Amino acid sequence: MSLPTCLPLPRIRFERGFLAERARLVREVVIPYQWEALNDRVPGAERSGTINNFKVAAGERPGEFYGYWFQDSDLAKWLEAASFSLATHPDPKLDAELDGIIATIAKAQQPDGYLDTFVQLTAPDKRWTNLFEWHELYIAGHFIEAGVAHFEATGKRTLLDVVGKLADMIEKVFGLGAGQIPGYPGHEEIELALVKLARVTGEKRYVQLAAYFINQRGAAPNYFDAESQRLGVSAKLPIYFYKNRWEYLQAEKPVRDALEPVGHAVRAMYLYTAMADLARELGDQSLRQACHTLWNNLRDYHTYITGAVGSEWEGEQFSGRYDLPNDRAYAESCAGIGLVFFARRMLDLELRGEFADAMERTLFNNVLAGMALDGKTFFYVNPLEVRPEEAKARRDQHYVKTQRVPWFGCACCPPNIARTLTSLGYYVHSVQPDGLAIHLYADCALDATVAGVKVGLAVKTDYPWDGKVRVEVTPRGPAKFGLRLRLPGWCTAPSASVNGAPVDLAAHARDGYLHLDREWAPGDVVTLDLPMTVQRVRAHPRVHYDLGCVALQRGPLVFCVEQIDNGPQLAQLVLPKRAVLTARFDAGLLGGAIVIEGAAERITPASNELYSTAEPIRVPATLRAVPYCLWNNRGEGEMRVWLRED
Amino acid sequence: MSLPTCLPLPRIRFERGFLAERARLVREVVIPYQWEALNDRVPGAERSGTINNFKVAAGERPGEFYGYWFQDSDLAKWLEAASFSLATHPDPKLDAELDGIIATIAKAQQPDGYLDTFVQLTAPDKRWTNLFEWHELYIAGHFIEAGVAHFEATGKRTLLDVVGKLADMIEKVFGLGAGQIPGYPGHEEIELALVKLARVTGEKRYVQLAAYFINQRGAAPNYFDAESQRLGVSAKLPIYFYKNRWEYLQAEKPVRDALEPVGHAVRAMYLYTAMADLARELGDQSLRQACHTLWNNLRDYHTYITGAVGSEWEGEQFSGRYDLPNDRAYAESCAGIGLVFFARRMLDLELRGEFADAMERTLFNNVLAGMALDGKTFFYVNPLEVRPEEAKARRDQHYVKTQRVPWFGCACCPPNIARTLTSLGYYVHSVQPDGLAIHLYADCALDATVAGVKVGLAVKTDYPWDGKVRVEVTPRGPAKFGLRLRLPGWCTAPSASVNGAPVDLAAHARDGYLHLDREWAPGDVVTLDLPMTVQRVRAHPRVHYDLGCVALQRGPLVFCVEQIDNGPQLAQLVLPKRAVLTARFDAGLLGGAIVIEGAAERITPASNELYSTAEPIRVPATLRAVPYCLWNNRGEGEMRVWLRED
Repeated sequence: MSLPTCLPLPRIRFERGFLAERARLVREVVIPYQWEALNDRVPGAERSGTINNFKVAAGERPGEFYGYWFQDSDLAKWLEAASFSLATHPDPKLDAELDGIIATIAKAQQPDGYLDTFVQLTAPDKRWTNLFEWHELYIAGHFIEAGVAHFEATGKRTLLDVVGKLADMIEKVFGLGAGQIPGYPGHEEIELALVKLARVTGEKRYVQLAAYFINQRGAAPNYFDAESQRLGVSAKLPIYFYKNRWEYLQAEKPVRDALEPVGHAVRAMYLYTAMADLARELGDQSLRQACHTLWNNLRDYHTYITGAVGSEWEGEQFSGRYDLPNDRAYAESCAGIGLVFFARRMLDLELRGEFADAMERTLFNNVLAGMALDGKTFFYVNPLEVRPEEAKARRDQHYVKTQRVPWFGCACCPPNIARTLTSLGYYVHSVQPDGLAIHLYADCALDATVAGVKVGLAVKTDYPWDGKVRVEVTPRGPAKFGLRLRLPGWCTAPSASVNGAPVDLAAHARDGYLHLDREWAPGDVVTLDLPMTVQRVRAHPRVHYDLGCVALQRGPLVFCVEQIDNGPQLAQLVLPKRAVLTARFDAGLLGGAIVIEGAAERITPASNELYSTAEPIRVPATLRAVPYCLWNNRGEGEMRVWLRED
Repeated sequence: MSLPTCLPLPRIRFERGFLAERARLVREVVIPYQWEALNDRVPGAERSGTINNFKVAAGERPGEFYGYWFQDSDLAKWLEAASFSLATHPDPKLDAELDGIIATIAKAQQPDGYLDTFVQLTAPDKRWTNLFEWHELYIAGHFIEAGVAHFEATGKRTLLDVVGKLADMIEKVFGLGAGQIPGYPGHEEIELALVKLARVTGEKRYVQLAAYFINQRGAAPNYFDAESQRLGVSAKLPIYFYKNRWEYLQAEKPVRDALEPVGHAVRAMYLYTAMADLARELGDQSLRQACHTLWNNLRDYHTYITGAVGSEWEGEQFSGRYDLPNDRAYAESCAGIGLVFFARRMLDLELRGEFADAMERTLFNNVLAGMALDGKTFFYVNPLEVRPEEAKARRDQHYVKTQRVPWFGCACCPPNIARTLTSLGYYVHSVQPDGLAIHLYADCALDATVAGVKVGLAVKTDYPWDGKVRVEVTPRGPAKFGLRLRLPGWCTAPSASVNGAPVDLAAHARDGYLHLDREWAPGDVVTLDLPMTVQRVRAHPRVHYDLGCVALQRGPLVFCVEQIDNGPQLAQLVLPKRAVLTARFDAGLLGGAIVIEGAAERITPASNELYSTAEPIRVPATLRAVPYCLWNNRGEGEMRVWLRED
């Protein structure tokens, strides 16, 4: 079978339901708010300086650079999110705002294609000298992604031309040829962006440039050894940069020798995403093998039940195998987004349900938890257990926020969440040469060209609250193709029908997907029933943090208990092994949500003594759990995913 | 009843048994080794510089100051330990070494009495300008303690005269009078030392000086507000100094208003010790009430089951109520020693078993764990749970050492342990105006003057391995006095006899002591039987770290499981509620020790999956626990005090 090309912009409309609500929130609240913030027009908000930096670099106004060395990327991610939004929801005002700022960006770009306002305004003679710490290539990657999205959404080449010129310049500067810099990014990102640029421009050489960055990464002699010596930086940089040499940025060894996810989790996820892209684009078997090894170890040793990754605060890094603390989780929203990217690319390499299962878990739990229900505040760090008083007092939880915070400041996560939630179509489906696969279920309508025929699909479902899915297929002509519908790993008894006739799952299910290969006629209806039961999930006993505990899951959603429903001291809540748990939809709760309820017990003190030989007393209690992705939308309080079971 | 004076040097010989072994180790290994280290004569060891600093300050050789600003205190603590050792074990060579270094110290002392080699050699014009950070008064306190011990042990006034001159100078410099500095120590210690100095010199004014320091502490306007402004230090010092203003050094409010142990744990314990001293010396009821409040809160909210205190790494401080993490415990050996001091003073205020119970628990578990069985390596930090791989990888456990380390470097704990183990007599008993109380049981012989009569006591016991104690009383004349024998709180069924006749405990036990008031004749024998059973202890459920777990205790000893006996992944070990546990003496283990053994279970993975709905599998296992104070004497490995119970 020929391979799918990389993620063309999907045209999917989400009109109602769980994901549609969040996408609407991003469109109507987050994107306008971020535009104001990038322009420093939010009263009382921390200064962003981002757009001002571009205006200064463009010569439109006097001034100085303000912010982090990666500040430009905030605008790039916002441009990408806004472009995605325009693709499905045209908006002349937003369109004009993009035109305006793109013109400024074009003016800020230097004649040879270089673009990075931090370097241009603070160290113009130091281009590409600090690949380790500065983010020139990372920012270029985000602008390339934005340029591709803007072009695909609007048909305008304005930003695409800017980023093409930038990519061409980078192609000249980097490489193993005479006079070229044999380096690669300190923060991966451009690699996956170049694959997208190759797709829309048809220029295979951008794939080759990405392949150069990937192949050179960690090769001996190590570029960062030489660069850091040149800069003399070793004394002033945090120690984690040097833990196992260049492990922090996945450059301690060639990528094909990497067996274990290591280092800064967002960097790692972006790298593995690009590796999977290139394995597919180039049919590179050794790269593909490395992706599978990394994936397997990520799955087996490094992922929270919420799908979050990167459990170590220091350097926002991966920790050791099974080291998944709940109250001291880092679990950055951006790392979760990166895992969604990686999983989506693995699905393009191989249509296996486990990749979609992981993508769904991370998106519905870790990533969605990153944003408040009003779209105004965000979590960077996503713990699975919070005791506010302790988190505020203990130094080792200083990075845990007990409430979401406004998006600006070091604002990597909020615009990342925005661009993810405005491009959900990417993750919902993929078009394959011989068919169309649905990975995630959401109420939506999509148009695609499958095996040369235009096909409309109308999906009706109340997912993730309910597992019933109705898919109506409307080809615009005779259409023989395979429809692949994911059978989620969490579902133990799925069933399906085509035009009312039951489907023999044993014959048609393969690798976590239902394969329906037939000639489709307008009005064909496939139904899927994915019964959702309340499941008690246990962690591998090597995860000592979770020993003696269970997590509650229903469908793709992980649940948690909150203080507002269960009182304080959630650690004292015990779920008896035989307790019956029931799920019910509470229309009045958090915009309508499933809650899980049941009888429980509470450990209460036998005395006021700190230590005693008396057995603790158990008193009856009730338990009420809500979806983890909705936690902390009713004020500050304790929260806990893993519940003591007895 | 008139109050006992503060801790005169006891003449007790410990010839055999558990504590005697450790005292012998300090005498024969630790003190000689530390002398070499202080003299920079240990090949390959980190430089101490301590004695060199004094020789330079004395003009005996050229050179510069080396080490921390509190380096002098290492020598002072060593001098105190060596003096204690001389009191019970004369040693001409050691005696001569002391004479030599004391002569150097006397030469180093400035004509007006000032003594602090750091200030003398690095900032001679900056005396008393940085009470907050520098340790001039802390060092003075340690030298005063050493001078008192040296005088009491040897009858020589050489060091006593030096510290008397120093104290007199401090008395002139500090106070609320015209031209005096209205300050007090950044690190408490001198207050308790001055009370000792008053005792041996008969000069009550030293008690008044201590009272000034205590009464002025935290008074408004706050001295450290003014000092820090003068120094402009706020920008460069760690944030924990400013958490709740001066809480780190117990100076955020007057000491009588302090309800909760806060701040740096060693500082706090030394302060509370002096507060109890002064409450007794001055009959100060408000100070006494503050001591009781602090004690009660320390006991109810802040003490590990090993008797350790100070659970927060940042600033080596107390944390919130019930916040007692096991793997991230700080639990510094010096803070435990400070608790022993405080408890001992509370016993002098009021003879209650709970103070002795706490003193015993901390000494036998936390403090003894601080030193290896060979006396060559030490723990500063005493966790109750260690997974070496995790402790080395996680940033939030970076301060946890998985093996004891040699004593030098920032060497506060090793000489502190040495001076404690050479002065065990202080903690074993106290002489009261009308009697004599035995607080801790150890095989020993002591001579004391009780109610005007010389009395010899011979205690025979295998404590803490066995609870049988035989006390032979030998007065040198007719002697009517009360013998008070502690009835440990952990013992549920004690019994006693006098000359073979059973004692009615209901009639003679009061506040945790057996009170035997009678006329004693030579050869009178009291026996005590304190049956030791294996006890399962539970923590208050607010200590969420220990929920679902029990600790094993037998007599005063807390036990732990080690990897070498139980295999790795100790968190997976489960102690069934009904499992029978037996204690047996293993003569071949760690110099002979009680071990606790029984049937247990192990949680094993149902699959290799990280998350699964399958219930974990339990397989039979055996459990073998050893005394916590002996852990890590057989190589590196996991350790755990709190065992999962089910």
